[in-house]
Amino acid sequence: MKVAVIMGSKSDFPVLEKTINVLKEFGVEVIAKVMSAHRTPDEAHDFSKNAYANGIEVIIAAAGKAAHLAGVMAAYTTLPVIGLPIKSSTMDGLDSLLSTVQMPEGIPVATVAINGGENAGVLALQILSLKYTELVPKLKEYKKDLAKKVHIQDKEIQEVI
Amino acid sequence: MKVAVIMGSKSDFPVLEKTINVLKEFGVEVIAKVMSAHRTPDEAHDFSKNAYANGIEVIIAAAGKAAHLAGVMAAYTTLPVIGLPIKSSTMDGLDSLLSTVQMPEGIPVATVAINGGENAGVLALQILSLKYTELVPKLKEYKKDLAKKVHIQDKEIQEVI
Amino acid sequence: MKVAVIMGSKSDFPVLEKTINVLKEFGVEVIAKVMSAHRTPDEAHDFSKNAYANGIEVIIAAAGKAAHLAGVMAAYTTLPVIGLPIKSSTMDGLDSLLSTVQMPEGIPVATVAINGGENAGVLALQILSLKYTELVPKLKEYKKDLAKKVHIQDKEIQEVI
Amino acid sequence: MKVAVIMGSKSDFPVLEKTINVLKEFGVEVIAKVMSAHRTPDEAHDFSKNAYANGIEVIIAAAGKAAHLAGVMAAYTTLPVIGLPIKSSTMDGLDSLLSTVQMPEGIPVATVAINGGENAGVLALQILSLKYTELVPKLKEYKKDLAKKVHIQDKEIQEVI
Amino acid sequence: MKVAVIMGSKSDFPVLEKTINVLKEFGVEVIAKVMSAHRTPDEAHDFSKNAYANGIEVIIAAAGKAAHLAGVMAAYTTLPVIGLPIKSSTMDGLDSLLSTVQMPEGIPVATVAINGGENAGVLALQILSLKYTELVPKLKEYKKDLAKKVHIQDKEIQEVI
Amino acid sequence: MKVAVIMGSKSDFPVLEKTINVLKEFGVEVIAKVMSAHRTPDEAHDFSKNAYANGIEVIIAAAGKAAHLAGVMAAYTTLPVIGLPIKSSTMDGLDSLLSTVQMPEGIPVATVAINGGENAGVLALQILSLKYTELVPKLKEYKKDLAKKVHIQDKEIQEVI
Amino acid sequence: MKVAVIMGSKSDFPVLEKTINVLKEFGVEVIAKVMSAHRTPDEAHDFSKNAYANGIEVIIAAAGKAAHLAGVMAAYTTLPVIGLPIKSSTMDGLDSLLSTVQMPEGIPVATVAINGGENAGVLALQILSLKYTELVPKLKEYKKDLAKKVHIQDKEIQEVI
Amino acid sequence: MKVAVIMGSKSDFPVLEKTINVLKEFGVEVIAKVMSAHRTPDEAHDFSKNAYANGIEVIIAAAGKAAHLAGVMAAYTTLPVIGLPIKSSTMDGLDSLLSTVQMPEGIPVATVAINGGENAGVLALQILSLKYTELVPKLKEYKKDLAKKVHIQDKEIQEVI
Repeated sequence: MKVAVIMGSKSDFPVLEKTINVLKEFGVEVIAKVMSAHRTPDEAHDFSKNAYANGIEVIIAAAGKAAHLAGVMAAYTTLPVIGLPIKSSTMDGLDSLLSTVQMPEGIPVATVAINGGENAGVLALQILSLKYTELVPKLKEYKKDLAKKVHIQDKEIQEVI
Repeated sequence: MKVAVIMGSKSDFPVLEKTINVLKEFGVEVIAKVMSAHRTPDEAHDFSKNAYANGIEVIIAAAGKAAHLAGVMAAYTTLPVIGLPIKSSTMDGLDSLLSTVQMPEGIPVATVAINGGENAGVLALQILSLKYTELVPKLKEYKKDLAKKVHIQDKEIQEVI
Repeated sequence: MKVAVIMGSKSDFPVLEKTINVLKEFGVEVIAKVMSAHRTPDEAHDFSKNAYANGIEVIIAAAGKAAHLAGVMAAYTTLPVIGLPIKSSTMDGLDSLLSTVQMPEGIPVATVAINGGENAGVLALQILSLKYTELVPKLKEYKKDLAKKVHIQDKEIQEVI
Repeated sequence: MKVAVIMGSKSDFPVLEKTINVLKEFGVEVIAKVMSAHRTPDEAHDFSKNAYANGIEVIIAAAGKAAHLAGVMAAYTTLPVIGLPIKSSTMDGLDSLLSTVQMPEGIPVATVAINGGENAGVLALQILSLKYTELVPKLKEYKKDLAKKVHIQDKEIQEVI
Repeated sequence: MKVAVIMGSKSDFPVLEKTINVLKEFGVEVIAKVMSAHRTPDEAHDFSKNAYANGIEVIIAAAGKAAHLAGVMAAYTTLPVIGLPIKSSTMDGLDSLLSTVQMPEGIPVATVAINGGENAGVLALQILSLKYTELVPKLKEYKKDLAKKVHIQDKEIQEVI
Repeated sequence: MKVAVIMGSKSDFPVLEKTINVLKEFGVEVIAKVMSAHRTPDEAHDFSKNAYANGIEVIIAAAGKAAHLAGVMAAYTTLPVIGLPIKSSTMDGLDSLLSTVQMPEGIPVATVAINGGENAGVLALQILSLKYTELVPKLKEYKKDLAKKVHIQDKEIQEVI
Repeated sequence: MKVAVIMGSKSDFPVLEKTINVLKEFGVEVIAKVMSAHRTPDEAHDFSKNAYANGIEVIIAAAGKAAHLAGVMAAYTTLPVIGLPIKSSTMDGLDSLLSTVQMPEGIPVATVAINGGENAGVLALQILSLKYTELVPKLKEYKKDLAKKVHIQDKEIQEVI
Repeated sequence: MKVAVIMGSKSDFPVLEKTINVLKEFGVEVIAKVMSAHRTPDEAHDFSKNAYANGIEVIIAAAGKAAHLAGVMAAYTTLPVIGLPIKSSTMDGLDSLLSTVQMPEGIPVATVAINGGENAGVLALQILSLKYTELVPKLKEYKKDLAKKVHIQDKEIQEVI
């Protein structure tokens, strides 16, 4: 299981760290790269064109502002591309979200929440689980852990009210 | 290959018809249902809970306004859930988009463009192609057809200018 | 008099503390719970389904981002459900507001202002006051206190200008 | 059971007709009035001040643009006030929604969806059902009818796909 | 020359201090009051109804969120009412702006920029200058001072580049 | 009494016709001009610079999109300038509104609702009424007429419900 | 003088026709192409990479929704790239505008108004006029014509009021 | 090579410093001025009217809120005018962006990203490079440096994951 995690800038890393961590926890090999649709376009295209041949199965692309990275990657591959919009210093993430999600007919990007680092990883895992069915029970366990955290929070609330 | 296409209301069908058509063209079995997160919640949950056991591999959920359908489905399954925001008569689709994409940590929805019916189908195909590799050459062909349509449009433009 | 105050995450508590305080001041029994439409969906549904039987008369549900909690609760009960949109780290509360208020025909959520914790409580009291008329003079007193605070602020302003 | 349905302008009537119809179907007496927070402010205030004494139990106020009607009504009563934002010719309903929902601490307005005429009525019924418990089974029936409509739509979809 | 400066809450004072200062610099008598369209509605109406008789010539009303204060004042007087939208903790001032400016036909509010305290005062002075022509040369002087400040800033920039 | 009504384009006339009509009804002399901040800037500046000397007492400036006309006029005069944002074919009037209202410190524009033609005229009348007190009873009459129209609408509603 | 006018889809042509017409009127050779950042990415890149060598001096790129075309072109050339956001069926052009203008540091796109076809052409002419000074008097003439049209509109208004 | 960098206020300088620096690095003479469309309008107009005669080849104008500076400059010259929207304390830059970019037919402003100081400079260089072809290899070098920075960031990421 191999997933590429591409970020437009190193400053996006704090969000993507969550993506990488959840993928690694599930035993997925992660290829992490800084690549830019605008500053290193050929490398971005080559990476996407060769991703399938290189055994990559899902591409996660994170970018902010006029966030073209995921869309540009999606143009060059038949692999599912997950777009992760990053909030920048203006427009509260709306620019990144619209630039990532509003893709034209024929070239989808699977967009997750603004700064939704963990969710980009979990979505990749769900996609992989179609083929790697050993992930299914692990994802169920992950869901149970989410529920457990809610239960713990609930207990803490019972104590303070 | 089996994909569920769920819509919150029959009025969403014109958008979802494109989803269903592209899936069928690729030989995918489509289960289409009208189900509502708010009007038939138990049926929606049961559908999602049993989807994996029923052989469904991807769920596509379309809804407008406070579009909870995809998120509610995602709560009950480890299958990838694709959210398709439908533009309604107010707010130009922004309410549907934000209600679909801004999911909390742990429960992603793979969101496509507002009214992006065809793209919801294509994304499902890309996800399926990890396991059903026979889809890969077909998706490449599909991409070539997209390019051909651009070429035809380009020729038409050359004639009018 | 019994009101349920449900939050999607413990981090919503600072806003809901105001809700709980105003309810308790008026002598209302408060059931406070952390429950999630996405992480503990069955518990949320069961809670809502059984709320009427358990003597709960109003449900207040607070959530941020793609805030489905109030809508999902409203699907399972005929009790009035008050939605309290919580501002999260992106989109300035607009996502929470639209996800809460833009409910489809037949399943309303009584939405109050973003982060309007106290108002969620006051609205619950106004609803209860139809049946528990002893609340009416207390609510009138509360309104007078609001006016008094304005008068005090006015005096302070007279001193500084 | 008596509910006041107030509209800022006669042009809001097509939306409010649904409100009135659903209330009448449930046997609620409806007082419908055109009153304006800005053009007939004293009448609006007097109406709200005397609403409780006149046996009104819920006020529904609908207005567009800088929609102050619901808020102004809420200032003068301890009755629950439901705000119904009406979409006007600019800003796609966002101005009406924000003017209605973003009420200051202490004076809530129970806001429903933009142009959500039926939901304003249903919310009033849910509120009334606390006191008039004979409404509870009727509201359950109403919910069943919503589900039935979904089932009918689902059947229609099965025929066309 | 007499201008009323009304604020919905004492917390708006830092913005209104600029309004009051510029009015006083021009020799205008200022009546400053904390009054609320929702918490002290009768006082607000009485103030507005009697403003003309009390010799007030312009009303400046500042409020945040669902900012009804200026509109409510405008309903009760033929005096020009200046609306000053205050940015609150959510929605970046958009709610205050739309609630203040989008007034229905017949009842205008002269709206200035979000948090534009000084401009509310200057606009009042411009309005007064129609009658009190001695303000005209002072307003010209004020404009010259604005230009001088630009020239000083320009000199400072010349030194740093 | 003399008011200038300036429009950026002849296409704005349907909105401004209401402005001109209400002014004429009150006996105000109207100077109507098409002038553009960008296409005839010198004429716009000269008009504004000389407006006071030419006996003009209020300037109303209407424009759409990047609506600079009112702001540019305000730069050259101490007269009150009323800005009327016109909705164009994109952005639903938000661009016009923000371009008109968000003026920098020192140069206010008295902004009315998007496409609020009549209100621009009424605001001008309210401003003039400080000096021309004969307008005050007429404005009161105008307010009464507004109320009468509400009463007529109310009667019509009573007949249909 | 040679300008490339690239559109993402033939449906953008009605807007671009104005661009092409104004360029041809000024004697500029126009290369018009339908090319897509997502459907024919390699052709788009090759076109941009070779544009300078092929004698093209300005690139105008028009696209809607997640409008990546201008940004992707800008990545591959040192020529100035003008971005023309096209309004699509959702989001009123805001998605196209933000996707075009919010470019990251180092790779600017010179963005004009949504659907501003003529302005894209005029901006190209202004850029060309630095080198081809014979355009300067023609652009002055063009500006005079704009003013003349305003004068004609003004005369028409004088007749109707 | 001579470029004017105009800012509406000294507070815009931190953003414009990047503009000035990149221009100077490429050997361009920079004229930096604080000038205001509203506070020093005649100076702004004179500057723009005489810019061509004074050897200026590109004008960069930066302003916030109702950002009229670039548009007003563009009205008076045939030179290309670059608009740089500055984020102010409200509306997250949206007001500045729309006021700058949404120019009417015939008078374009080449708009760059909100607070995109460096990009305003790079766009000016790209425009100048049509005439001053010695800039072309330098701009290619600049692009290579952008790519190098991405490579360095990529290496840093490889070390931390």
